[in-house]
Amino acid sequence: GAGQRLSPAYSSLFFYRTLEPALRDLTQPLIDHAEGQLFLNEAFKIIVEEVLHKGTDAEEKVCEWREPESLALLLDLQLRDTGESQGRLLQRVRNVAKYSIKTSHPHFFNQQFGGVDYHSLAGRFLTEALNTNLFTYEVAPVFVLMETEVLKALRQLVGWTDGDGIFCPGGSTSNMYAMNLARYKLFPEVKTKGLWALPRLAIFSSPGSHYSVQKGASYLGFGTDSVVLVKVDDGGRMIPEDLDAKIELAKSQGFVPLLVSCTSGTTVLGSFDPLDCIADVCDKHQLWMHVDAAWGGSVLFSKQHRHLMKGVERAKSVSWNPHKMLLAGLQCSAFLLQDTTNLLKRCNCANASYLFQQDKFYDVNLDIGDKSVQCSRKVDCLKLWLMWKAVGSTGLEHRVDKAFLHVRYLLEQMKKRDGFQLVSTPEFVNVCFWFIPPSLRGKEGNADYQDKLAKVAPVIKERMMKEGTMMVGYQPLGDLGNFFRVTVFSPHICHKDMDFFLDEIERLGKCL
Amino acid sequence: GAGQRLSPAYSSLFFYRTLEPALRDLTQPLIDHAEGQLFLNEAFKIIVEEVLHKGTDAEEKVCEWREPESLALLLDLQLRDTGESQGRLLQRVRNVAKYSIKTSHPHFFNQQFGGVDYHSLAGRFLTEALNTNLFTYEVAPVFVLMETEVLKALRQLVGWTDGDGIFCPGGSTSNMYAMNLARYKLFPEVKTKGLWALPRLAIFSSPGSHYSVQKGASYLGFGTDSVVLVKVDDGGRMIPEDLDAKIELAKSQGFVPLLVSCTSGTTVLGSFDPLDCIADVCDKHQLWMHVDAAWGGSVLFSKQHRHLMKGVERAKSVSWNPHKMLLAGLQCSAFLLQDTTNLLKRCNCANASYLFQQDKFYDVNLDIGDKSVQCSRKVDCLKLWLMWKAVGSTGLEHRVDKAFLHVRYLLEQMKKRDGFQLVSTPEFVNVCFWFIPPSLRGKEGNADYQDKLAKVAPVIKERMMKEGTMMVGYQPLGDLGNFFRVTVFSPHICHKDMDFFLDEIERLGKCL
Repeated sequence: GAGQRLSPAYSSLFFYRTLEPALRDLTQPLIDHAEGQLFLNEAFKIIVEEVLHKGTDAEEKVCEWREPESLALLLDLQLRDTGESQGRLLQRVRNVAKYSIKTSHPHFFNQQFGGVDYHSLAGRFLTEALNTNLFTYEVAPVFVLMETEVLKALRQLVGWTDGDGIFCPGGSTSNMYAMNLARYKLFPEVKTKGLWALPRLAIFSSPGSHYSVQKGASYLGFGTDSVVLVKVDDGGRMIPEDLDAKIELAKSQGFVPLLVSCTSGTTVLGSFDPLDCIADVCDKHQLWMHVDAAWGGSVLFSKQHRHLMKGVERAKSVSWNPHKMLLAGLQCSAFLLQDTTNLLKRCNCANASYLFQQDKFYDVNLDIGDKSVQCSRKVDCLKLWLMWKAVGSTGLEHRVDKAFLHVRYLLEQMKKRDGFQLVSTPEFVNVCFWFIPPSLRGKEGNADYQDKLAKVAPVIKERMMKEGTMMVGYQPLGDLGNFFRVTVFSPHICHKDMDFFLDEIERLGKCL
Repeated sequence: GAGQRLSPAYSSLFFYRTLEPALRDLTQPLIDHAEGQLFLNEAFKIIVEEVLHKGTDAEEKVCEWREPESLALLLDLQLRDTGESQGRLLQRVRNVAKYSIKTSHPHFFNQQFGGVDYHSLAGRFLTEALNTNLFTYEVAPVFVLMETEVLKALRQLVGWTDGDGIFCPGGSTSNMYAMNLARYKLFPEVKTKGLWALPRLAIFSSPGSHYSVQKGASYLGFGTDSVVLVKVDDGGRMIPEDLDAKIELAKSQGFVPLLVSCTSGTTVLGSFDPLDCIADVCDKHQLWMHVDAAWGGSVLFSKQHRHLMKGVERAKSVSWNPHKMLLAGLQCSAFLLQDTTNLLKRCNCANASYLFQQDKFYDVNLDIGDKSVQCSRKVDCLKLWLMWKAVGSTGLEHRVDKAFLHVRYLLEQMKKRDGFQLVSTPEFVNVCFWFIPPSLRGKEGNADYQDKLAKVAPVIKERMMKEGTMMVGYQPLGDLGNFFRVTVFSPHICHKDMDFFLDEIERLGKCL
């Protein structure tokens, strides 16, 4: 037979004799499923109890603060040669839960994610158990079709009947896809020849845009000097006239203007750039208009609030993170594309023949993996799909509308209290404010007022973390000293939680 | 009070009156935890039954093949306005499981991932429930410390007592990090000025290296022409003398040689580049040596097999995917770095003041998020940590050693049968072979032999998929026509499964 071509390579496996007999026994697999499933059952119970039950109880802590050294000691993180008992491991599961931040707690206001949707979570457990890699129809039949359908539904909300897209590991990556596609569209030779073969390019964005525009410019080889910051109005919205002027200026300096990265829902203020007017400028100069709606995109579900993104249908691409306001769970970031010419695949494909064979027995257009700059790619669509099936577009619309109602309530309550001063007029569900402690009230004229005010938020933050009662972020912005940013979107909260929020800021800051 | 600065913005929320009364009620949250947890419980049972119990049973199918149109119809993927009943949703969970590929099945040999480790899976469920975003110590205290510890343990296996690193969403991203760092190290001005300010750079790799080297070259702005392919020997290993020559040639053509991307465990053949000899060449020319050990890195756990990566400690960076051979679950990809000068952070940081405030009450060096080119970043370390704690380094070593034993057994059995012809001598756990059907045996001299042989694998593959009995990949390589590549690393298999594999290839291919 053809067997003679078998080489003696594996006869060099002399180590065989040195191995333990149990390992040499090829009649038994190394992993016992029954025992493993027992462990998983017990771990599941602990997860439900610690993370989902206690972790969402307003009476429990958001945070069990420990200093890093003491936490490291407590967790005994070191990895060793020998394994541990199941009981010890279950205690580890409990400890990890205990000392982690409870991001689904009603008093977690720290970031633009958080909250638990149980249908999404079931989808995430299923995703993990299936452990599917989203390359091809052959290995991911359900998810190739599902991702396509979810992207289509998201595109319809943008206002596109056709197009393309992909799920990315986060909004930064989605924004980088836009930059990469824009330059490939204009200069396809960049794929082979690199940026050296191209004129210097310019990317336009606002100072309030997400830092991934800067990171992307650096990572993709443009350099951060390629990013031109356009002026914003009092509400943090890009000024189209200044965009036009900056584009002209860049041209006069020898740059080729490539792309405008607009923002729908800036990170700090929650501002929405005026997309329709920006689209006019993009049309005029033939620029790629990208909308970073990672945070704000969810308003598209709301008949009442989608006007904030009027003009989005004129964009060439949109980033939208359902893991933020919609609670789809990390990571869930859609990159949506108006293009119907297979630009995404043409730009990113490498045609690896071990994966994307062309002689398959089904339509190889279903092998969507080559659209990605990744190879292994996690399934991020199932959780969103299952949640969407569970509550419908209307249920998601309600979450968005309710978030605006919560903000309205919070603003009304702030107005009734002393010491809460807004940084700007909220347009979305970010409420940015200074808390003026009693000792600083009426002292606005003092020379050291701003310095003293800027020190208030960090102290209140430290106190709330150490007591573990709630979490909210603060930051400076341009010339403005530290102020709090509370993002009010969790469907877990009710008016009591917002009252608590304000009471707690007052309590922690009153003696400052 | 300061309240007078509250603007009337939210009085423009006239939509309030149009909302349903239930939505206007702010005394109740939108999500009912008890009801949600009930659903999750039921879903969990289905997942255990369908994916973990039936899905790992050798008597059940790996694949329930459906044509795309019929599967789409069956799954009813469309997203609608209204939600669905809990019963209907549980049926959807069951259907998604049923029609998905069972990647933990003992007869899933299709790719370099697959298999279920129950401790890892418990860690993944906990990760999902906690929904932590790995930016800062404040929001991810446990995982900042844990990621640091896991990276340290991986680096120790590489042979480094100090260094840096980060978990990335896949090996492609890890490889791209290396390219980005190498150019920043040599030309820090690239971060602000872009590639235009740099001489043309060259990257060296082998034809068997992963396609992410090409994708990265394109994505990061180098262009694929920057990638110089170095000749390989019969076993698919990079030839150091040719590397040296290619570097000299590139220099003479005006390129600045930047980086060599070596591979430990190539995708198709499983070849290991000779790292020590390549390191000599890198030293000579002062190039950044990167080792893509996404697939092969796990041999470092094995005293018997780590010689395959001799010299890895001389690399500047290593990519290693524990989601492959070690069963950590997708995604789990470590990028390891020898550097101790904070190069990773200096290269990637954007210093976003809303996230990485410098006036925090703890050591801000713990805010590791700015090392990443992502912003939102999923926790990928917990699953690996928990699995490692459970079985210890020794348990992981056994998995690696056993995989080699399985390959040895498979090769012995192939030798005993007619029709199995190796493509090359296996160095790792990839076994590449042609199946010669009876009708082609002894016809090697015929003019159409190669053409006919190349058509065998696709037909056998189609048959096995449609019957759902097992999955294994095939591909051409260079001049070689389609051959099968079976990756034998699953700790779920025993000798019966390998016998089944060979029987099944024979059964499906005998009449060809």
